[in-house]
Amino acid sequence: MLSVNKKALEIVNKMIEKKEELNIDVIKLENGATVLDCGVNVLGSWEAGKLFTKICLGGLAHVGISLSPCECKGINLPFVKVKTSHPAISTLGSQKAGWALKVGKYFAMGSGPARALAKKPKKTYEEIGYEDNADVAVLCLEASKLPNEDVADHVAKECGVEPENVYLLVAPTASLVGSIQISGRVVENGTYKMLEVLEFDVNKVKYAAGLAPIAPIIGDDFAMMGATNDMVLYGGITFYYIKSDENDDIEGLCKSLPSCTSKDYGKPFMEVFKSADYDFYKIDKGMFAPAVVVINDVTNGKVYKAGKINAEVIKKSLGWIEL
Amino acid sequence: MLSVNKKALEIVNKMIEKKEELNIDVIKLENGATVLDCGVNVLGSWEAGKLFTKICLGGLAHVGISLSPCECKGINLPFVKVKTSHPAISTLGSQKAGWALKVGKYFAMGSGPARALAKKPKKTYEEIGYEDNADVAVLCLEASKLPNEDVADHVAKECGVEPENVYLLVAPTASLVGSIQISGRVVENGTYKMLEVLEFDVNKVKYAAGLAPIAPIIGDDFAMMGATNDMVLYGGITFYYIKSDENDDIEGLCKSLPSCTSKDYGKPFMEVFKSADYDFYKIDKGMFAPAVVVINDVTNGKVYKAGKINAEVIKKSLGWIEL
Amino acid sequence: MLSVNKKALEIVNKMIEKKEELNIDVIKLENGATVLDCGVNVLGSWEAGKLFTKICLGGLAHVGISLSPCECKGINLPFVKVKTSHPAISTLGSQKAGWALKVGKYFAMGSGPARALAKKPKKTYEEIGYEDNADVAVLCLEASKLPNEDVADHVAKECGVEPENVYLLVAPTASLVGSIQISGRVVENGTYKMLEVLEFDVNKVKYAAGLAPIAPIIGDDFAMMGATNDMVLYGGITFYYIKSDENDDIEGLCKSLPSCTSKDYGKPFMEVFKSADYDFYKIDKGMFAPAVVVINDVTNGKVYKAGKINAEVIKKSLGWIEL
Repeated sequence: MLSVNKKALEIVNKMIEKKEELNIDVIKLENGATVLDCGVNVLGSWEAGKLFTKICLGGLAHVGISLSPCECKGINLPFVKVKTSHPAISTLGSQKAGWALKVGKYFAMGSGPARALAKKPKKTYEEIGYEDNADVAVLCLEASKLPNEDVADHVAKECGVEPENVYLLVAPTASLVGSIQISGRVVENGTYKMLEVLEFDVNKVKYAAGLAPIAPIIGDDFAMMGATNDMVLYGGITFYYIKSDENDDIEGLCKSLPSCTSKDYGKPFMEVFKSADYDFYKIDKGMFAPAVVVINDVTNGKVYKAGKINAEVIKKSLGWIEL
Repeated sequence: MLSVNKKALEIVNKMIEKKEELNIDVIKLENGATVLDCGVNVLGSWEAGKLFTKICLGGLAHVGISLSPCECKGINLPFVKVKTSHPAISTLGSQKAGWALKVGKYFAMGSGPARALAKKPKKTYEEIGYEDNADVAVLCLEASKLPNEDVADHVAKECGVEPENVYLLVAPTASLVGSIQISGRVVENGTYKMLEVLEFDVNKVKYAAGLAPIAPIIGDDFAMMGATNDMVLYGGITFYYIKSDENDDIEGLCKSLPSCTSKDYGKPFMEVFKSADYDFYKIDKGMFAPAVVVINDVTNGKVYKAGKINAEVIKKSLGWIEL
Repeated sequence: MLSVNKKALEIVNKMIEKKEELNIDVIKLENGATVLDCGVNVLGSWEAGKLFTKICLGGLAHVGISLSPCECKGINLPFVKVKTSHPAISTLGSQKAGWALKVGKYFAMGSGPARALAKKPKKTYEEIGYEDNADVAVLCLEASKLPNEDVADHVAKECGVEPENVYLLVAPTASLVGSIQISGRVVENGTYKMLEVLEFDVNKVKYAAGLAPIAPIIGDDFAMMGATNDMVLYGGITFYYIKSDENDDIEGLCKSLPSCTSKDYGKPFMEVFKSADYDFYKIDKGMFAPAVVVINDVTNGKVYKAGKINAEVIKKSLGWIEL
């Protein structure tokens, strides 16, 4: 079985080697753990954003940052592309932000390979039937503060590895690397909704690909939470290749998957969040999905498309000013 | 002289090393030959499709699988990009499906570097003035069964190499890798028509590039033959940079090159094939060409464009369902 | 501090190693200097164009040559993409064509890392606060003749390095590599105008990206000077992420930056040049800028866009013939 932590470590080591070029900082903690600051006290870079995203995906995806010569309905932004031939493992088994890390006063959303060691949450790993038994743990943190020894010790313990084998990568929501890695969840947003909302067995997804615009830095971490969500919800395009079983309704799945099926669709995420009194649990879970979904049912040879790009909401979300 | 087989072998070795990640299988035959199963009993992957295509091109091309944020007239699919600065050698001297391999009951269309050793067909190698004398043979097979020792022995003999130096890569038409590698022939479809139909000296093509959508898996090998052809015929875009001689009519060449010049143009390939009583020889050879051709005559500085994308036929060919 | 010359040397060595595949020639001069002919007596290649451009940028940028499935208002050409997280150093400290090299009868515009050793011009390096003290000098020359020992000696002396540590890369304007590397200046055209015309402190630009079509070879070096300029002026798209200070007027900067703000905008460069009696100094400096500019002010979270693609002028400039 492929180890997402070992695959990720190869990329971590490459980042450490090129740290100056990547505008990142590498901090050795007293317990031997390594922190890669990708945006807290440093600028980060396009390349660091790409590698951070690939690490999040357990190394089992191709990640690129690209530019297009064409405007999509009046908007043109750099975008992140993801392609994976291990969709369940790389997106749900690794990339999903499934580990709410709380150690003392430190809080961060954890994602990436280390989750597969600590089984966060256990249910996901049962559903996708994956486990990793690497002796190294690589965890990605969306946070605006760097973690200390206590955090690393906690991660080491939860993962069953030595503290010196713990690697913590950190990028704030309001940073280039943070913005890239969140848009890089475009494929995961779809597999997540499949599994958690539509209760579809994601192991049947054999290949997947997707892209989403990278949100410019339009404010602080809170404001960026809105903008980064909108990139996927209103600008994300995804492709899923599914080996269906006889009783699967893939047409229904495709119809239900894009964000536009949600009752909360049509407004920037921040407005929806405000209407929900800033309570995540009041927001329709079905909204967290890509704007466009193309599904190829490779069993019966059908190709379905649902959803659409909504440039107007993207512009509104970003406060896009046309001069 | 560059050796397409030696260049390809570097990539083959990389594939063997990463076989688990690539979802491929590596089988050592009793005579020492190596078979890379890229889609018969395995799933294959985006990356395997890219590397298979690059191997087909003798390693002398850049191959990428990309995504675009823009819909082209209502259709958006992952696409394969090819760029080569050795167009004649990489497309006609290697990638062309010029070796109909028949050994016992085994049949497969062979393409790729080994053709340059076995000179399949001899005429092509005389016309492009290329030969390879490597002691290793790399052959790509479009087939839904894996080859055995007899096949490998036959290839070894035809290529004048030892069986243990034979590498056979296999992908069915109805597989992700198969679909990618066929769309990856978009540039070759043009150079092939130039040489075989329009009798233009392809050695004058100095650089070339192209892209074509990757067909979803819409059925079995037979159905996929139609869909994969349509990706190039109705969705392929190509760029050729030609050093013309005084008497060359490059404007005429560009006008004649795209698929739309054919009398059979306008319907999905499968319909054309059916009308021809499933007899390839009754189909206009001129139809097998990219949809769009841009030619830059670098001698006189002219730039010509002919042809157009036909999204309607692509949708029809794929049975594209808009939900 | 990162050394643009050392970073570039890594790429130079890769080019030397793959010279046959890249269609380039490597010439050792008697004084030990190395000349890489990328288009004078050789064809060059897509890959050589990409690496030449990356070397120009001191290795501190990602450079890609890409293709798009979509036509932008009727035009579709391969394009070059540039992303950098070291915009000031890579574009102005290295890529800028700031060294008019004249040695005996030899003349060429010099760009690339060696400028950072010879401080050409000194003012630029004071303004961006960068210096390199590498013992190796890599210089890129836009010229249709190869340099000799005298040229290499001159460069060595100006850079304070031994002649055997001098690497001179050469590509004519009217060559594939030349055309790629000029379009590859799309981001630099913007930072240059920021600094030289709008007097904005480019050190505040933290990340940048851009793309521009690659001009086909439409004539000799003189004709190509027009076409290559037009690719950026009428087809270039750029993204700048700026950390502004309190008194900066970033909206004004964005409004003033694209080429369309110039009084000379709207005609192919060659026509403008002719109207100016072929005198560069009579042309509005503000014209040398990308067609489209998107600026994200990361301090206050604003996103501005100014300018537009002008496919009509591009077609006119290239003599684009639709068949």
